[in-house]
Amino acid sequence: MASDFIQHINPEEVKAYRSWLQYDFITDKQYKIDMLKYCSHIGCMTQSILIESAVKELQKAFESMFDVQPNVTDDLSSESSIILATDKNIDLAQYDVPSDVLSEINNEGYLIKHVCKENQNHILILGRSDKGILYGTFHFLRLLKNRTSVESLDIIDAPRNQLRMIDEWDNMDGSVERGYSGQSLYYSNHEFRDDFNRITDYARMLSSVGINAISINNVNVWDTETYLISKRFLPKVTEIADIFRAYGIQLFLSINYASPIELGHLETADPLDAGVQQWWGDKVEEIYDYIPDFGGFVVKADSEHRPGPFTYGRDHADGANLLAKAIVPFDGVIIWRCFVYDCLQDWRDRNTDRARAAYDHFEKLEDQFLDNVILQIKNGPVDFQVREPISPLFGAMPKTNQMLELQIAQEYTGQQVDVCYLVPQWKEILDFDTYAHGEGTPIKSVVDGSLYDYKYSGIVGVSNTGNDSNWTGHTLAQANLYGFGRLTWNPDLSTEAITREWVQATFGHDPVVIEKIEFILHQSWQTYENYTAPLGVGWMVNPGHHYGPNVDGYEYDVWGTYHFADRDGIGVDRTVETGTGYTAQYFSPNDKTYNNLESCPDDLLLFFHHVPYTHKLKSGETVIQHIYNTHFQGVEEVESFIRAWDELEDKVDPFRFKNVQERLIKQLKNAKEWRDRINTYFYRKSGIKDEYNRTIY
Amino acid sequence: MASDFIQHINPEEVKAYRSWLQYDFITDKQYKIDMLKYCSHIGCMTQSILIESAVKELQKAFESMFDVQPNVTDDLSSESSIILATDKNIDLAQYDVPSDVLSEINNEGYLIKHVCKENQNHILILGRSDKGILYGTFHFLRLLKNRTSVESLDIIDAPRNQLRMIDEWDNMDGSVERGYSGQSLYYSNHEFRDDFNRITDYARMLSSVGINAISINNVNVWDTETYLISKRFLPKVTEIADIFRAYGIQLFLSINYASPIELGHLETADPLDAGVQQWWGDKVEEIYDYIPDFGGFVVKADSEHRPGPFTYGRDHADGANLLAKAIVPFDGVIIWRCFVYDCLQDWRDRNTDRARAAYDHFEKLEDQFLDNVILQIKNGPVDFQVREPISPLFGAMPKTNQMLELQIAQEYTGQQVDVCYLVPQWKEILDFDTYAHGEGTPIKSVVDGSLYDYKYSGIVGVSNTGNDSNWTGHTLAQANLYGFGRLTWNPDLSTEAITREWVQATFGHDPVVIEKIEFILHQSWQTYENYTAPLGVGWMVNPGHHYGPNVDGYEYDVWGTYHFADRDGIGVDRTVETGTGYTAQYFSPNDKTYNNLESCPDDLLLFFHHVPYTHKLKSGETVIQHIYNTHFQGVEEVESFIRAWDELEDKVDPFRFKNVQERLIKQLKNAKEWRDRINTYFYRKSGIKDEYNRTIY
Repeated sequence: MASDFIQHINPEEVKAYRSWLQYDFITDKQYKIDMLKYCSHIGCMTQSILIESAVKELQKAFESMFDVQPNVTDDLSSESSIILATDKNIDLAQYDVPSDVLSEINNEGYLIKHVCKENQNHILILGRSDKGILYGTFHFLRLLKNRTSVESLDIIDAPRNQLRMIDEWDNMDGSVERGYSGQSLYYSNHEFRDDFNRITDYARMLSSVGINAISINNVNVWDTETYLISKRFLPKVTEIADIFRAYGIQLFLSINYASPIELGHLETADPLDAGVQQWWGDKVEEIYDYIPDFGGFVVKADSEHRPGPFTYGRDHADGANLLAKAIVPFDGVIIWRCFVYDCLQDWRDRNTDRARAAYDHFEKLEDQFLDNVILQIKNGPVDFQVREPISPLFGAMPKTNQMLELQIAQEYTGQQVDVCYLVPQWKEILDFDTYAHGEGTPIKSVVDGSLYDYKYSGIVGVSNTGNDSNWTGHTLAQANLYGFGRLTWNPDLSTEAITREWVQATFGHDPVVIEKIEFILHQSWQTYENYTAPLGVGWMVNPGHHYGPNVDGYEYDVWGTYHFADRDGIGVDRTVETGTGYTAQYFSPNDKTYNNLESCPDDLLLFFHHVPYTHKLKSGETVIQHIYNTHFQGVEEVESFIRAWDELEDKVDPFRFKNVQERLIKQLKNAKEWRDRINTYFYRKSGIKDEYNRTIY
Repeated sequence: MASDFIQHINPEEVKAYRSWLQYDFITDKQYKIDMLKYCSHIGCMTQSILIESAVKELQKAFESMFDVQPNVTDDLSSESSIILATDKNIDLAQYDVPSDVLSEINNEGYLIKHVCKENQNHILILGRSDKGILYGTFHFLRLLKNRTSVESLDIIDAPRNQLRMIDEWDNMDGSVERGYSGQSLYYSNHEFRDDFNRITDYARMLSSVGINAISINNVNVWDTETYLISKRFLPKVTEIADIFRAYGIQLFLSINYASPIELGHLETADPLDAGVQQWWGDKVEEIYDYIPDFGGFVVKADSEHRPGPFTYGRDHADGANLLAKAIVPFDGVIIWRCFVYDCLQDWRDRNTDRARAAYDHFEKLEDQFLDNVILQIKNGPVDFQVREPISPLFGAMPKTNQMLELQIAQEYTGQQVDVCYLVPQWKEILDFDTYAHGEGTPIKSVVDGSLYDYKYSGIVGVSNTGNDSNWTGHTLAQANLYGFGRLTWNPDLSTEAITREWVQATFGHDPVVIEKIEFILHQSWQTYENYTAPLGVGWMVNPGHHYGPNVDGYEYDVWGTYHFADRDGIGVDRTVETGTGYTAQYFSPNDKTYNNLESCPDDLLLFFHHVPYTHKLKSGETVIQHIYNTHFQGVEEVESFIRAWDELEDKVDPFRFKNVQERLIKQLKNAKEWRDRINTYFYRKSGIKDEYNRTIY
């Protein structure tokens, strides 16, 4: 049955389209018999659009897995059933469930429990809210797909992060900035698309992994997109909000800071101007008339040529508070991006350090933001490189809400041509100890709000989806979207657990399939790092589109991203004594760890230090030999991915098999180009030969 | 009075628009009185559209210079006049002119002579053809603008080159490939423009410097342009041919080699296929029905992804002869470009040498081309760099017509932002001794046809014009178009003579103006070379658009243009012994001169040799110090251009003054960027300090 939209997908692409929401027919007869007794009836004790979504999902799944069309009832007297209820509309005592069973968890949590009442077995999906029931339903279906025995089910779960958000970088011309999966799901040719069917399936995917917020337009808000908050487009925005609402996802919009001028025809957008304040107040009221549960605004201001408060001599707090005041009566929030730096830097200037920018701009504004402002901070201080240190701004502002921005889109990590599973990277980020409040205060404790008791916080990811039939261009890139959602729900999940869940949900239970795909995914990030920019130095990509190697591509440009390679050495000196002083932005002892050449981790060495090519790493290799070794190795690893994948030819449907196979071949070409250009560049510069005499050009 | 079109030009831009065809009011009263006696009457002894053009030009000039409206008559009995006649329609004996006065010159030549008949003084402009009269008229007007005394005039002149041609690289979408002066004069939005008025003025400009052929579309023939030889566009092409014909300019078209497939719906474009031959025969006949004096086709085949005979296992001679056979009944010619090379080269491959390609492809086909085929050969073996050796193909095919292709458009020489006067470069090219037939066989003797008695030959230039009000973006770039025409007419003209002609015609006679502009122009090519790619190595530009520095921009790319700089040295080894063997393509002794490190000229050193940075040039400088010195010097020279130009603020009309001033400021920025990137790149790589301790980053 699936959604409406799936009818427009070529039959051979349906499995790719269904991503991890496959409900394959269960061939295990005993399991089927065991389950049929529950799955023929859905006891639905509460009514809402969220519950409708949960019921539809159960119906879709049961029909597909068990060939049964369950009847939906609010009468639990007779048959075994799946019971959907909140703790307020069912008498828990009748099921031997303590009435305070959910008291310890937040409003989005749930219980999944095998219960008995009057000799009838049931599976109870109990939420503190209807949203909790929906999440519990998706969780229950995940268990079913894994043939989990339900007899002793007793699971309580709740999300750790408050905002679990997707930022779409979709433009209304239909393009997606840093999109590698086709065109926008929402827009085409400066209008909304005619058909939103596919968005429902997208909402199901997101909701099934716990996403609860989405901003549907690019943070770079161009001319047409400025009108998203006007009558011209708000009716259509409302339709999209309705779709997402049914899956527990709150809608946000990115706004143009100059809207009072562009839309309101005021002469200024000065945040301290009374007319501007009035204009935003009226504008927010208008938006909430359309969308009563509108989430708020995402704002990129005074960054990369976007307008902002600097134009009027105001600071970011002035800028954000203007909007925060306007939206606070409606419980909305302002998500203010900290990706602010000088993008017209002179490469000759070695004093300005882009890595310092976010901290330098924002840390001094501590205590000045209203409490419905959240600072959205990219994980690293520069820009989503394959390897970067953590932004030192995390934890540095106890009184200012912070959230973490990750990039699911693989802008600098292979652009969904090359496989690069980012969950291991995100785990490292979340587990990184900031020492903001002594040892044991990792990033995840900052952004889940627990460390400083933030009113609002969470994790946002830049989407990697588009209208390709498989959503993400590279089918294996679906795992990044899945993993992102799961980690925002629970940052303590292990990479291995997430991968296993995704592979099984997406490709089934064949152990060879699981083994090969897990091998590829778990190795892929390290492999991508191996054949690209070494030791944390980053960049070295082709300017503009950012795919493929170009060692000097940004070296003499305005973007502040340099490696300073010369004939003797390479790296950026960010130490206090002789460099830009960036290391001092970290809490102790991270500051010293990075500042000190001896203690700085190898994988970030060139981010923090300029060293000779002959510098010995902790591994015992020299820097130059490390470059050669990792680059030869990276290519060999891609070759091993190809061999592994080729073994799955008869085990994966042809469309997905070919999709991945074709991209792996392109990846190999890319990896070889990286290997040869990087090795040649550094050989020509250093004059030092590879110890193993491998081919360098 | 000027042309119709000038009415659409802003009044302040009229002088820019008029380029070198200014007819300023003569304020020298005596000169005016002296001239008025001739200029009040035009004796017109022959009738044709060419003569109409000549008369119109005289009328326009006299009205503007002397405020007189001359009467035009075929009765020479009464008054002093300007007489326009061919040697066939006037009795020369009556004027004491020998009847064989023009017997030594070709059909486009003319006599300008002060003559007397029955006590009446006349100025006789005598042509062997009406075209000669038109050229003589423009020559006479040049003299007038320079206040030349006419009493002893006795000039015989004729063009040295047969084809004096402009290649427009205009696309029908309105863009101009490598165009830096606005949009196309002919096309817009995949149609012809509505208004061709401006083309008449363009034809006047071209004719006034002797241009006699033009191809009006890009050698890269895309989808729409393929239809230029079809009924869809031929009526409009005919209108343009009519305009150019009135100024003695023959029209050519660039064609798509796959036209039989694209237009004719044949299954092949194989030159040996009878159906294809028939198709081209019919097609050519159709074109000549529209344009009886159509010149022929320009063809870029099997080059940079354009289709050609290679697809069918045929060679370039097969390809060209197919078209030549079709067009020979109409006296048309086929101009076949030799810009053929592997544009998907692997940078790792050091054996393939793009510089070898034209010679390797074509020399072996000597004697196989029909005699109405002309091979069009770029001046250098690579691509219009600021400094390149001469293509060794010139003179290497005595039995195959050759013509020289120059680029007036400043693709690699500053893109009409930076001033770069190319006449000195072209002079070097034309005077280069090929030794094809012993000493004293320069390029100009090859391409004027005299060396091998070619049936067809000449010089073609890629146009630098567009619909900017001043035609060439940078006003000083008009000098390149002027100088190109004058050199095609007479390659023996000195740079100094051409410059003086142009400056006076364009800016008048103020000695300060002349001095400053000549200073800038004469220095500009050397200056551009100084601050860009050193010692003949070329490239080092930003890929794609080719403006601004990027040392490694093409170093790891597919285009075959590398410098191989490493920590020790730089340059391409093209010697016979250890390199690509390219030097052997030259006649002796050029082959040895280039092959031998000691005799290779400094300015081409890195084109032919890979040398250490410490290699001593003939100047006594090391290579690295030469790089530093020239790059610092180049910037200083641009600063001196700015100072020189600024002195002309009150002497040049505001529009042209500002146009040049603004571009000089941009040029300075560009020059500094070049200086610093080149110096920094080589300092980082070589580790060798500047002897003078100037700032390198």
